[in-house]
Amino acid sequence: MTEKTALVPATHTAPPAKFSHGVKKGNILQVAGQVGFLPAVEGQPPTPAGPTLREQTLQTFANVKAILEEGGASWDDVMMMRVYLTDVDHFAEMNEIYNAYFEEQDLKAPASARTTVYVGLPKGLLIEIDALAVLS
Amino acid sequence: MTEKTALVPATHTAPPAKFSHGVKKGNILQVAGQVGFLPAVEGQPPTPAGPTLREQTLQTFANVKAILEEGGASWDDVMMMRVYLTDVDHFAEMNEIYNAYFEEQDLKAPASARTTVYVGLPKGLLIEIDALAVLS
Amino acid sequence: MTEKTALVPATHTAPPAKFSHGVKKGNILQVAGQVGFLPAVEGQPPTPAGPTLREQTLQTFANVKAILEEGGASWDDVMMMRVYLTDVDHFAEMNEIYNAYFEEQDLKAPASARTTVYVGLPKGLLIEIDALAVLS
Repeated sequence: MTEKTALVPATHTAPPAKFSHGVKKGNILQVAGQVGFLPAVEGQPPTPAGPTLREQTLQTFANVKAILEEGGASWDDVMMMRVYLTDVDHFAEMNEIYNAYFEEQDLKAPASARTTVYVGLPKGLLIEIDALAVLS
Repeated sequence: MTEKTALVPATHTAPPAKFSHGVKKGNILQVAGQVGFLPAVEGQPPTPAGPTLREQTLQTFANVKAILEEGGASWDDVMMMRVYLTDVDHFAEMNEIYNAYFEEQDLKAPASARTTVYVGLPKGLLIEIDALAVLS
Repeated sequence: MTEKTALVPATHTAPPAKFSHGVKKGNILQVAGQVGFLPAVEGQPPTPAGPTLREQTLQTFANVKAILEEGGASWDDVMMMRVYLTDVDHFAEMNEIYNAYFEEQDLKAPASARTTVYVGLPKGLLIEIDALAVLS
């Protein structure tokens, strides 16, 4: 139960440094900051799903979800999501995408907590999300 | 013990999206990013306690505390607070308010850890705080 | 096991407010945001290890590690590191320093998860890091 394991979905691009996309130890699962990169293509650099907030947000959700599932968890186990946006003017649109996405996920447990703040991100990226989950 | 429950103080304004102000699962309690909104008034949009850092910080503390208490926790259970300010020049004043507030709370356990960084927040908001607690 | 204790390395500078550099409760250990301050010298204000990203990053790692060890933990127990930089152009260099440092640490467990975002920090500081650990 207290072994620490790395959660590395096969489709994810390699992290830009020596960190894990996700780790799990006991009942705690931590997802590293995910962005809207498409599944890795060998020999190609990481590529965002598109230039729009919608494309990047949905791909970021998919990337977070893949890590949760790699650790035997689901959105229902998520306690906290941290959403990093680059522009305050994106808040309303992100919330629309967020609400529609989680509506479709058919959650059984209450929605997770969330903090949204506005920071700098690498050029071309509009959103980053990380997540803390507690497994049942 | 491992059921995930939402912590929704009756007085809180509705979140701007499908997330919970707080969640608790097992002994882990996560408080979502809180700002200085006054208790909700039906039919009115969320309203900050005032334009000053002091007013907003004290209201933010009250909002975090209400969620902790909704989950059967207190400041003594808080492990980590993340304080988001919009202006480095607010650091000294925030620390004064912070110290005076926690002096009054008469904590029995050691003070929590904290990280303070400077980010963008929605117009009119000067501070946001979230918190992670571990219950005894 | 569920007592909350403060983790205060003897060499650390005093926090600028009523918070703890680290806390531990049960198997959860939280390290507060650390910066590149040198060990405290009585009667002197906190002083960064130097003006460069390299100097500050390595000192920040040392400061995080001291808190982990104060709580009987090590880098192997860290689940999540949050890295706050002030400049997107520092990302590549920080990753080089990061990788070289953790190469030397001879970790037994998988690398922790990580989120890196770009925020404001107090004048002269280029990096801040906090960490969440789960003990075995």
